[in-house]
Amino acid sequence: MSNQNRQITLAARPDGFPSESDFKLATSDIPKPNEGECLVQGIYLSVDPYMRGRMRARPSYVAPVQVGEVMGGGVVGRVLESRCEDLKQGDIVEGVLGWQEYAVAPQKALRKVDPALAPISTALGVLGMPGLTAYFGLLDVADPRPGETVVVSGAAGAVGATVGQIAKIRGCRVVGIAGSDEKVRQIVDELGFDAAFNYKTTKDYADELKRLAPDGVDVYFDNVGGAITDAVFSLLNVRARVSVCGQISQYNLEATEMGPRLLWHLIVKRAKAQGFLIFDYANRYNEGLRQLSEWVKQGKIRYRERIAEGIENAPKAFLEMMQGKNIGKQLVRLSPE
Amino acid sequence: MSNQNRQITLAARPDGFPSESDFKLATSDIPKPNEGECLVQGIYLSVDPYMRGRMRARPSYVAPVQVGEVMGGGVVGRVLESRCEDLKQGDIVEGVLGWQEYAVAPQKALRKVDPALAPISTALGVLGMPGLTAYFGLLDVADPRPGETVVVSGAAGAVGATVGQIAKIRGCRVVGIAGSDEKVRQIVDELGFDAAFNYKTTKDYADELKRLAPDGVDVYFDNVGGAITDAVFSLLNVRARVSVCGQISQYNLEATEMGPRLLWHLIVKRAKAQGFLIFDYANRYNEGLRQLSEWVKQGKIRYRERIAEGIENAPKAFLEMMQGKNIGKQLVRLSPE
Repeated sequence: MSNQNRQITLAARPDGFPSESDFKLATSDIPKPNEGECLVQGIYLSVDPYMRGRMRARPSYVAPVQVGEVMGGGVVGRVLESRCEDLKQGDIVEGVLGWQEYAVAPQKALRKVDPALAPISTALGVLGMPGLTAYFGLLDVADPRPGETVVVSGAAGAVGATVGQIAKIRGCRVVGIAGSDEKVRQIVDELGFDAAFNYKTTKDYADELKRLAPDGVDVYFDNVGGAITDAVFSLLNVRARVSVCGQISQYNLEATEMGPRLLWHLIVKRAKAQGFLIFDYANRYNEGLRQLSEWVKQGKIRYRERIAEGIENAPKAFLEMMQGKNIGKQLVRLSPE
Repeated sequence: MSNQNRQITLAARPDGFPSESDFKLATSDIPKPNEGECLVQGIYLSVDPYMRGRMRARPSYVAPVQVGEVMGGGVVGRVLESRCEDLKQGDIVEGVLGWQEYAVAPQKALRKVDPALAPISTALGVLGMPGLTAYFGLLDVADPRPGETVVVSGAAGAVGATVGQIAKIRGCRVVGIAGSDEKVRQIVDELGFDAAFNYKTTKDYADELKRLAPDGVDVYFDNVGGAITDAVFSLLNVRARVSVCGQISQYNLEATEMGPRLLWHLIVKRAKAQGFLIFDYANRYNEGLRQLSEWVKQGKIRYRERIAEGIENAPKAFLEMMQGKNIGKQLVRLSPE
């Protein structure tokens, strides 16, 4: 162990789609834990779409990262030194520790991960924030019933892929929308979606959806917004539920995009569109993780990961995830397991 | 009683804002009731924003009126001849009898109105479809709590004025948005809204709302859509509820209007937008009418009416209502009480 802590800081606020020059590799000393804190060495770092929002100056549901500050993000790591009552050296933990190799955190900011349950990387994916987002966003916000049609955008991402599989467990017809033929093939052949289409090679989304969801759309889990969402809204059924999870198509726009006004659809279809943030379900995380773990163990939920090597490659991994190059969860390996 | 039945038929499908030439005064014989039906002479006809939708060829939640057909609409009238078991000559009834002086209807299409409870015209207003729309759209869809801020657009119309007063009964701060200084004065001074503004003379709706709703917006009851709704969305509080009742600003547009994409607000604020149609509450109408009648009797809900004279003036009354010339419920008198 060197005593240098390599970190990625925000070098500049991006204008439009971010680039590697908006990030900077910096080093600091490895911090020391105070009483009630642990020193954690990161093993995996998660890069997620919401981080684009944190790179802006304007406040959102998470505070902006300041220029010069370490980028925020979820990490799974091992406890190197514990001054916490309930954690000991060698324990595997998960927490929002940032884009860096080492971090100090109080016990309440760390969740203990059981390496016997599943690979520890899943604590950032299907058994972590993305899995919980899929679980509560689908089941609590939209509550799909057997036989209903569920459409998922961003369907091959960490959240979308899990949403589709939970909807299948619920007995729904599941249609995915994704950004490559390989993603479409994978979610249908490997994850059990009933149908999917590649929006990058499809001219008329609504026409294609009509074909793949001939009974209309009862539940729409929206990760992307924009023109895809416009098309799905035009096909909502009576009493449809739209779970608004993300709007990744909009995150790199500097001004609000204009689109067709959608509220009329909600009246005609007596439908609801509801946004949610996973943080609001904190007191139900255990329930979600218990169920997701069981499904993963039973093979009912599968997951894929794409892993970049080294903190120095975190910006590239983030940018590739924003471009949709990942299938499943995009991670960055910070140190060997 | 002549034996001519004067009617207003749809003469042409309007292009944009309708005009009187889109309607035609026609006459037919007064129809005769079959077994199980009543002949009803209309006393008041209701003209409502939703009728604009029925003038289009494309289907909505109600079937289009065909060119040459009598316009649809709610009527309060008296039974002239009864071949129904539970109705007798002289009874006052309400039903969807259309823009005409006489109509025949089966008993199940008629609701008996008690003239001792309230003026019979209220069966088309505060104790009819608009009142029930306000009641269920506010309480069931948005469920405002004491101390919350409720914003109502179309606030001086039959629905909006009732929404604001129910929200006051619930203990909310109520801000109305209406289209004239007289309407603003009336809903604040006579109906007890806490504040209101005239959108026709206000430059920046969001700025004005920030001033009048300094704690943000917990509930938005939307009758109008468009730029007013854009402004309200930008001020929604965490866990806000938007009850989407109407989009009158859009009804005369031949193409879908473009506007800023709004779904991101729902995520950041964990808010929901839910459309509804009053017909879906049919099995709870009695509950709503009982409560509304009580509030009207107690003076807690007041109402205003604007009455045009004669079936021949129904098109003009409808057009003036669409232009916002009415305060409260716009009616057409078909015959003396």
